[in-house]
Amino acid sequence: MRQVVGRRIVEVMDSLRTLAPRLEGLLGADRVITDPVRLRTYECDGLTNHRSTPGIVVLPDTAEQIAAIVRECAAAGIPYVARGSGTGLSGGALPRADGVLIVTSRMRRVLEIDIPGQRAVVEPGVINLDVTRAVRPYGYYFAPDPSSQQICSVGGNVAENSGGAHCLKYGFTAHHVLACEVVTPDGELVELSADGPGYDLLGVFVGAEGTLGITTKITVRLTRVPETVQTLLAAFDSIEAGGTAVSAIIGAGVVPAAIEMMDALAIEAAEAAVRCEYPAGAGSVLIVELDGPDAEVAAQFAEVERLCRDAGAFEIRIAADDAERALIWKGRKSAFAAVGRISPAYLVQDGVIPRTVLPDVLAGIDALSARSGVRVANVFHAGDGNLHPLVLFDDSEPGAEERAEEVSGAILDLCIEHGGSITGEHGVGVDKSRYMPRMFTDTDLDTMQMVRCGFDPAGLCNPGKVFPTPRLCGEVPGKRKGPHPFEGKADIF
Amino acid sequence: MRQVVGRRIVEVMDSLRTLAPRLEGLLGADRVITDPVRLRTYECDGLTNHRSTPGIVVLPDTAEQIAAIVRECAAAGIPYVARGSGTGLSGGALPRADGVLIVTSRMRRVLEIDIPGQRAVVEPGVINLDVTRAVRPYGYYFAPDPSSQQICSVGGNVAENSGGAHCLKYGFTAHHVLACEVVTPDGELVELSADGPGYDLLGVFVGAEGTLGITTKITVRLTRVPETVQTLLAAFDSIEAGGTAVSAIIGAGVVPAAIEMMDALAIEAAEAAVRCEYPAGAGSVLIVELDGPDAEVAAQFAEVERLCRDAGAFEIRIAADDAERALIWKGRKSAFAAVGRISPAYLVQDGVIPRTVLPDVLAGIDALSARSGVRVANVFHAGDGNLHPLVLFDDSEPGAEERAEEVSGAILDLCIEHGGSITGEHGVGVDKSRYMPRMFTDTDLDTMQMVRCGFDPAGLCNPGKVFPTPRLCGEVPGKRKGPHPFEGKADIF
Repeated sequence: MRQVVGRRIVEVMDSLRTLAPRLEGLLGADRVITDPVRLRTYECDGLTNHRSTPGIVVLPDTAEQIAAIVRECAAAGIPYVARGSGTGLSGGALPRADGVLIVTSRMRRVLEIDIPGQRAVVEPGVINLDVTRAVRPYGYYFAPDPSSQQICSVGGNVAENSGGAHCLKYGFTAHHVLACEVVTPDGELVELSADGPGYDLLGVFVGAEGTLGITTKITVRLTRVPETVQTLLAAFDSIEAGGTAVSAIIGAGVVPAAIEMMDALAIEAAEAAVRCEYPAGAGSVLIVELDGPDAEVAAQFAEVERLCRDAGAFEIRIAADDAERALIWKGRKSAFAAVGRISPAYLVQDGVIPRTVLPDVLAGIDALSARSGVRVANVFHAGDGNLHPLVLFDDSEPGAEERAEEVSGAILDLCIEHGGSITGEHGVGVDKSRYMPRMFTDTDLDTMQMVRCGFDPAGLCNPGKVFPTPRLCGEVPGKRKGPHPFEGKADIF
Repeated sequence: MRQVVGRRIVEVMDSLRTLAPRLEGLLGADRVITDPVRLRTYECDGLTNHRSTPGIVVLPDTAEQIAAIVRECAAAGIPYVARGSGTGLSGGALPRADGVLIVTSRMRRVLEIDIPGQRAVVEPGVINLDVTRAVRPYGYYFAPDPSSQQICSVGGNVAENSGGAHCLKYGFTAHHVLACEVVTPDGELVELSADGPGYDLLGVFVGAEGTLGITTKITVRLTRVPETVQTLLAAFDSIEAGGTAVSAIIGAGVVPAAIEMMDALAIEAAEAAVRCEYPAGAGSVLIVELDGPDAEVAAQFAEVERLCRDAGAFEIRIAADDAERALIWKGRKSAFAAVGRISPAYLVQDGVIPRTVLPDVLAGIDALSARSGVRVANVFHAGDGNLHPLVLFDDSEPGAEERAEEVSGAILDLCIEHGGSITGEHGVGVDKSRYMPRMFTDTDLDTMQMVRCGFDPAGLCNPGKVFPTPRLCGEVPGKRKGPHPFEGKADIF
């Protein structure tokens, strides 16, 4: 058996060795990385506990080059993975040792700004915040705001359908992408658009985590900078009281730009790290931000303030200017990193629950934490029920990480039991594919697989992500046989 | 050749004759229609110039029955078409003489109303307006409002991704559907959801015009009834002046619930039919409706009024109450039917253009009309560039309909040339499939076909709609062979 595996590795290495000069011929030698030390730089994305050094890294400059790379990979039967800035948190851009990593970072031109049409056309490597920077002088911005927005790429946002604190009101990346030029797994350039007749293939492409093709040009919707932004911080004795305020605000028909919540442990961490000076002794804090026309914000802001008081807020701070608003957000935005001040290590979980069961699920997380002795800090987009529990552990203590992973998994189970979902905005990637059968029936997964096989019958486009068990397209009932020779063999690498 | 065709018809009739008792066994005899006179009732949907008497009509009561019907059809190689109320305007529910028409009208229960979760679960035959009626007591409504909303079904809205006058602010059906239970062409029940991990198959299903399966249960988003609605009617000397006002309003960052526009001929027709008393001598009228919180509407309404005056409105009427608002809308809502007062017959066109080229395209339509002597009345959702030109003709005059069709087609060409699309909300169906190659490259269409073949390799699910040329799945490059014996033979019926 060992010999067989050994032979396979030799075969793969031979294929990659043959492919490398062909790719150099397409791109020039300086755009193809085969040096092991340099390859190591690309061994993971933001999910740092999964690592795999890519076989080859390529740095294309154009869509046509990406199409040509994909055609070369298809001809050689070599899998490939696209990657932007590599900030994803579920390992969606984890490379393969037997494959090519296509890095889009060099493709970072804003190609067109159409202010009357309220749209811009960008290359996939453009940094999220650079879209806003380009259109801000005209009074517009690009709404999706993942916390990595200073470094993440728009192509990655498309792959993962990224959200952010403000997606309660403004929606996810899918709601801000009007069209994508895409290299399909057969190496052709197609235009997918949300408008117009025919199937909305853009909808299935956005959020497919790079398994249906590689986007090479993205038309994004631009959003008007709101006339007014108002932000308040409300402190409550307990998580439950904060949850009551959230329900009251949403129930009143107010749609804030953001409602963020932090529990006592997350507040403690943020305080230790950035001295955000949140009210002392709070069991939870809520950050509520409203934006829109002056008159609307003024009227609704007063109502939000009243609803927070009714729910038992013992202190409410209203940001008088940009500096005060920045201070309120500072604690929230630094929360993940801040946890490092109170714990040597932690896992970030990403789950979703219906907003109405928030108190139940938080009580369940408390109970899990008490039973296991594993501390959990809660930070979340409360308005849309997207939880980000931070599960703390000491990585110098044997077995601690395993216990933390157990608690982290049990939190996802809680979310599923309460009618929620295993990911709100970080994606499935390699991290959560094993949970997919808990969310979906076999038939549901077969239907997704049918679509994947439609786009990628050979299974070379980011294989091993999203779906729990690597399957040949021929194994899906009613599907054509088009097995990829390496598919299902990921375990040998 | 004639004999061959004759033999095929005999074969098909034999298959249908064998299938009918099997369907009766599943549903009971009173739910299966084979009587030619009764079948005739179902020969078309709202696109009345395409007719085809279905082979068999079935009236299922449950999702399980639909799944069983689809399995029977699949086993017999018989195509099937689903239909709700049959109000579609592009022939998406046109039956096939060689197939089964699955009518969902008996499935009209509102299964669940979840007010805290702001959603309802309905069967596909539920009438659009009945969803609103069911939730209105709680202060909510179902936002998509096609003009057929008093009779069209939610299942049909899902198939066609229906819009309406208010989709400028509230979006299309796709934005108000959270999940669908679907019978796939292999006869299995799956749940497609917009939330959660995996591919957004709901996105590709909504608007696929019934070609990917049949929805049997729909979870819709409920929208809060706005605190205030304000409506104004502004009259302008010309279409251009009205268009300038539209651009100014959108450019100011205001998102009205609706901006509707009518030209002089449409106003004349509405006046003749319903005496809506729009200002005399107007070259165009604009109906602008704002909704939302009191404070927001008050502030923005004043701005809209000012922008209309700046653009040259010679009269502005503001609805003081519901009765006055209804009067303003009466002219617009009756416009299609009203055209019958000034012309014996007409075609309704449905095209989209970028809002910024509105004046150019309207001038182009004027020129077409002048050149051909065919009168065109323009009614449109101006805010989102969705035109509904009404092309008038006298059906007693030989060749008049052909000339009208030529002008109607030339208007679509104009839309495409200006970067627009061949349909805004009526769908492709059988009516516009021939235009698809003008919108999409062969590769784009192949990509859609791949997805269709993923769901429906045998090509039995509403074949002959949307796509220009009937093709076997085996003909798509890289796709498996799964020919349907009748596919591509539609011309013999």
